[in-house]
Amino acid sequence: MKGVIDIPAELLPVAEMVGAGLGRVAQVFDRALATDLPPVEQLCRHIERYRGKMLRPSLVMVCGVAAHPRAGLEDSKNLVTSVHDVLGAVVEMVHMATLVHDDVLDEAEMRRRGETVNRLHGNETAVMLGDYLIASGYHLCSTLADQRFALAVGRASAVLCEGELLQLHHREDFSLDEATYFEIVERKTAELIVCACEVGAAASGASEGAIAACRTFGRALGVAFQIQDDLLDLTGAEAVVGKSVGKDLEKGKATLPLIHHLARAEATVRGRTLMLLEAAANDRAAPAQIRAALESTGSIAHARATAQRLVTEARGAAMTLPASDARAMMLAMAEAVIAREH
Amino acid sequence: MKGVIDIPAELLPVAEMVGAGLGRVAQVFDRALATDLPPVEQLCRHIERYRGKMLRPSLVMVCGVAAHPRAGLEDSKNLVTSVHDVLGAVVEMVHMATLVHDDVLDEAEMRRRGETVNRLHGNETAVMLGDYLIASGYHLCSTLADQRFALAVGRASAVLCEGELLQLHHREDFSLDEATYFEIVERKTAELIVCACEVGAAASGASEGAIAACRTFGRALGVAFQIQDDLLDLTGAEAVVGKSVGKDLEKGKATLPLIHHLARAEATVRGRTLMLLEAAANDRAAPAQIRAALESTGSIAHARATAQRLVTEARGAAMTLPASDARAMMLAMAEAVIAREH
Repeated sequence: MKGVIDIPAELLPVAEMVGAGLGRVAQVFDRALATDLPPVEQLCRHIERYRGKMLRPSLVMVCGVAAHPRAGLEDSKNLVTSVHDVLGAVVEMVHMATLVHDDVLDEAEMRRRGETVNRLHGNETAVMLGDYLIASGYHLCSTLADQRFALAVGRASAVLCEGELLQLHHREDFSLDEATYFEIVERKTAELIVCACEVGAAASGASEGAIAACRTFGRALGVAFQIQDDLLDLTGAEAVVGKSVGKDLEKGKATLPLIHHLARAEATVRGRTLMLLEAAANDRAAPAQIRAALESTGSIAHARATAQRLVTEARGAAMTLPASDARAMMLAMAEAVIAREH
Repeated sequence: MKGVIDIPAELLPVAEMVGAGLGRVAQVFDRALATDLPPVEQLCRHIERYRGKMLRPSLVMVCGVAAHPRAGLEDSKNLVTSVHDVLGAVVEMVHMATLVHDDVLDEAEMRRRGETVNRLHGNETAVMLGDYLIASGYHLCSTLADQRFALAVGRASAVLCEGELLQLHHREDFSLDEATYFEIVERKTAELIVCACEVGAAASGASEGAIAACRTFGRALGVAFQIQDDLLDLTGAEAVVGKSVGKDLEKGKATLPLIHHLARAEATVRGRTLMLLEAAANDRAAPAQIRAALESTGSIAHARATAQRLVTEARGAAMTLPASDARAMMLAMAEAVIAREH
């Protein structure tokens, strides 16, 4: 959990439970990718370095405990099962596949302070490695007796791709409105996070109401997560973020601060920003000027406020679950999503 | 079946059964890709044009009937179930995803006489559309009550990706031996065909022995299919094949005729061929000269003979099933794989 959150003392036991769970998840993950082909083995070793905060497997565990019918009544360690471990590995594998494919889409060269697969081995290998991760994730999910999980993961993955396709359709479309932005982000980023929260709760035998609360929590947290990503791409330092920044501007992605700015700025300012956006890929000075323009219309503050509102919504959903250390961890994770610098 | 095979009169009833099945498969396929997002909908309509011979769904049907415990005793129409229809759509969806991603890998511009997704909408959209097809295929497979199918499809897809990754690892490696070639092809091309035959038989409640016969049939047919693809890329006419030809040479893929040639040719001939291969991407005359070189060592004949041997092996496996029209169709399909010109 160290990447996600500064852990208050009272949450140390639940953080320890999650940490132990993530260790098992990593083992399941590595075992599921075992192959008799050395070149494939080498690629799998490389992407183990992409394993960062493990937000999605953490949510499988934390929601699994917080939404458990015995939440708050029992030592949380005993509420996590091997099904949670497998589900954690499955959602992480699907997520890792999207990272590998996103890096191809974004022509990114750096990821978690290392070179990307596409940079090292070419786009073709990155595409196929992503496919291998997706296939291995589904295969692993199908080893679980309860078919609901494969259905949920399959559906979430398809929705995620729809979001990416919608975003690509609107690339360079700087007339995009906030409603379409949220439609993209809810699918592209939030849906797999929703899925992690949902399957974690479902694997604990949680009630329909508790599962729904976890879904609402995941959706709000997921959208807030993406807005924070938008902000980091604009304002972050590459050395801290650990991946290429300024890519959204370069690739013509309309982020929340930019959408707000273009809707609010007066015509001449708007025109100047659009010119800067066109220049962004080639002009090193353009990103800083775009940032200044966004500040001038309060658009960065607007994005931060929107993310904060979503965190409040996520916390509200979590608060409908019974009081427990795991629920307190859900609240802390929601705050951490927008406090993070990478 | 019209694309795969010239149908002898005695096989018309079983061909009709398969044709009706493929109609239902197409419906299941389209329903599974239904989306509320118009840009995604438009992409899905485009790839419907990729639907060609539907070899894999045909094999689900034909093996499903030929391996059925009541094969030969009963009207074959009644042996195909809605589970076969779903499985046909699933394997076709996974296959279609590999076509879309292969076109990105191969920088192909044409597919089934139409422009490719990467050509029309860019590599990014093609990568994501392929992912969407994979995810939708798995989701559809998880709707089946029997989890064995999702396991088989997940495993086959992962093995398929391993084969592609191994091939990419050996790109431009013209010292590749036949053993490695077959290792690549068994995974990259044959595995999903094996899976189609296997799940078709399993969905009919076939015996372990009959399922194993279908697997052996699929493996031999699948490898023969790839060798025929190698040959068509070398000797086919673009207008007949319906997709870009000569791509294997351009992309540095070692095909069976080339591997045989480089192993057999004397040093000076070998050296000249290697020079031609380097020039292949830029020199329009090189492919014809390479073809002539391969003819001179009997390498095209060797590849044809290998494919014929595999077809005999496939037929032998089919012959262990009880006599039926569907078994006769398996035999005819095995021959058709190497007789096809596209």
